[in-house]
Amino acid sequence: MKILVTGGAGYIGSHTTLALLEAGYEVVVLDNLCNSSDAALHAVEAICGKSAWMIRGDVCDRPLLDRIFREHQIDAVLHFAGLKAVGESVRKPLEYYETNVGGSITLCQAMAAAGVFRLVFSSSATVYGEPEEMPIREDFPTGNPTNPYGQSKLIVENVLRDLSLAEPRWSIALLRYFNPIGAHTSGHMGEDPNGIPNNLVPYISQVAVGSLRELSIFGNDYPTADGTGVRDYIHVVDLADGHLKALQSISERTGIHTWNLGTGDGYSVLQVLHAFEQACGRPVPYRMMPRRAGDIAESFADASKAAKELGWKATRNLQDMVADTWRWQSNHPNGYSG
Amino acid sequence: MKILVTGGAGYIGSHTTLALLEAGYEVVVLDNLCNSSDAALHAVEAICGKSAWMIRGDVCDRPLLDRIFREHQIDAVLHFAGLKAVGESVRKPLEYYETNVGGSITLCQAMAAAGVFRLVFSSSATVYGEPEEMPIREDFPTGNPTNPYGQSKLIVENVLRDLSLAEPRWSIALLRYFNPIGAHTSGHMGEDPNGIPNNLVPYISQVAVGSLRELSIFGNDYPTADGTGVRDYIHVVDLADGHLKALQSISERTGIHTWNLGTGDGYSVLQVLHAFEQACGRPVPYRMMPRRAGDIAESFADASKAAKELGWKATRNLQDMVADTWRWQSNHPNGYSG
Repeated sequence: MKILVTGGAGYIGSHTTLALLEAGYEVVVLDNLCNSSDAALHAVEAICGKSAWMIRGDVCDRPLLDRIFREHQIDAVLHFAGLKAVGESVRKPLEYYETNVGGSITLCQAMAAAGVFRLVFSSSATVYGEPEEMPIREDFPTGNPTNPYGQSKLIVENVLRDLSLAEPRWSIALLRYFNPIGAHTSGHMGEDPNGIPNNLVPYISQVAVGSLRELSIFGNDYPTADGTGVRDYIHVVDLADGHLKALQSISERTGIHTWNLGTGDGYSVLQVLHAFEQACGRPVPYRMMPRRAGDIAESFADASKAAKELGWKATRNLQDMVADTWRWQSNHPNGYSG
Repeated sequence: MKILVTGGAGYIGSHTTLALLEAGYEVVVLDNLCNSSDAALHAVEAICGKSAWMIRGDVCDRPLLDRIFREHQIDAVLHFAGLKAVGESVRKPLEYYETNVGGSITLCQAMAAAGVFRLVFSSSATVYGEPEEMPIREDFPTGNPTNPYGQSKLIVENVLRDLSLAEPRWSIALLRYFNPIGAHTSGHMGEDPNGIPNNLVPYISQVAVGSLRELSIFGNDYPTADGTGVRDYIHVVDLADGHLKALQSISERTGIHTWNLGTGDGYSVLQVLHAFEQACGRPVPYRMMPRRAGDIAESFADASKAAKELGWKATRNLQDMVADTWRWQSNHPNGYSG
């Protein structure tokens, strides 16, 4: 089977591309490299000895998509391409809606025109908004995400749901990611954000290697064990594996299906920080700051639906995640450009 | 002032173009004529002796938009362009999201690039979903529209709200239309839908002229006076006038502002039907059918916010609406192509 992976040079996309190649799939990567590097695909090749077709281009470019579907016999699409920085989305909402919503619509139109109806979509636990209870199940109502990034994910979910109602040939997986961290165990693939990282673990990593001075922790008065926010962190290699399982599942049935991809365990910011300090053997300075608007106290998955329906379960724990992150970060303090 | 009117050859767009020209504005119409006719603009010219620039093209065409903003000194945009058939939107969701959502995003990006920040957007009372009480005020929560058409309107409202938060130079009016009917009093402009009409009054009109055999009424067991659904019908010329008032208002202040455009009065399907029969002097055969999924019992506006803030109030009653519709329909039984 040949899979089109949009955003396949990005953090989750590249780990999934590796997993696909290792599992024997052929892979075509479409990536505009606006927040990723083709060095990630060189690392993929070095690790598994196989390579993906790399096409540099944009998921909003319909003629390019048509060409890809004409030149490759694509069986399914894994759609990672998108903008993902929450804070930036508040400042540049049109770019987020154009890329994330517009790109998804354009991709689906090109797929339908080419007769390709299998799609795995990178959604996010942010679509739940502020759930009333934990853990979060897939049948919880979707909330009103407080930023354009989250809105764009929810809009695409709803578009895909309408699409599936209109055209029963579609097989669609909505994968709601919790908080992907970690890196490939080789230490040669990992997260390589442009500029100042937006997420906790890349930020901690850069403090640990000395690129940034200290970590800001936003809020230590949440109703959690130590007062800092609790999230469900999931190892990116587990997450990649979840995509393969979802792909297999939708290859056997049509309709639209939603799965949480998380471990089911919540860890606080301080727990992650201390685990990281243990892994890297040095202190990570931090400063307590007031809560950030839009943050919730805790968020963790009920991961049982994916376990039951996909036979998938995260197998890597927090220690694995921080150890693998640290290996990547200390090998490559400047990411792929180093 | 020079105004860009997207969808300006359509039903509401052409009546608003006429009102703008009569009020002394210059008008550039952008319309792809996919569900409209440039004959509407000839009628506009015949009525008021002035004409708009007509540019045939699509609101999703960014280079064309850039050219329009380069060649014309546009002060504000009235954005009517979009697909509007609820039933079709269920069958072709991607087209609706691409045109209505994608088109609005592209338009806003072109506007921002050109330094034009005044926008009047054609929204719909459908964004309220199923309100718990009547009449509907603008501060009611937006609901979960049951079809892609309604979803697309709500998404654009939310995109514009995020945009206004991100960039305070924007002045945006969200106009939530109730049920526009009627036609220009001249009898030479009116609604000219492609194919079988989707809305009540165009359907009744075509039954009255003999183009269609009978009207289907969906549901006569609603908790309303006569059991049929109640809606707030508004004369298209009143609606056009509301756009001018909204345009004046947002020309004087920034931010995003929402106004219902309705009369505040609800009429049932049977009331409209009987009023129409009186206007045309002939019976309009109808057949009672079961309720249609997604229809609500009644919907009518609290129109006081527009009255207070815009100094706008609908002045034409149901008799005016059906009389004007009939004049148009009997003069032009085949619409503009006749």
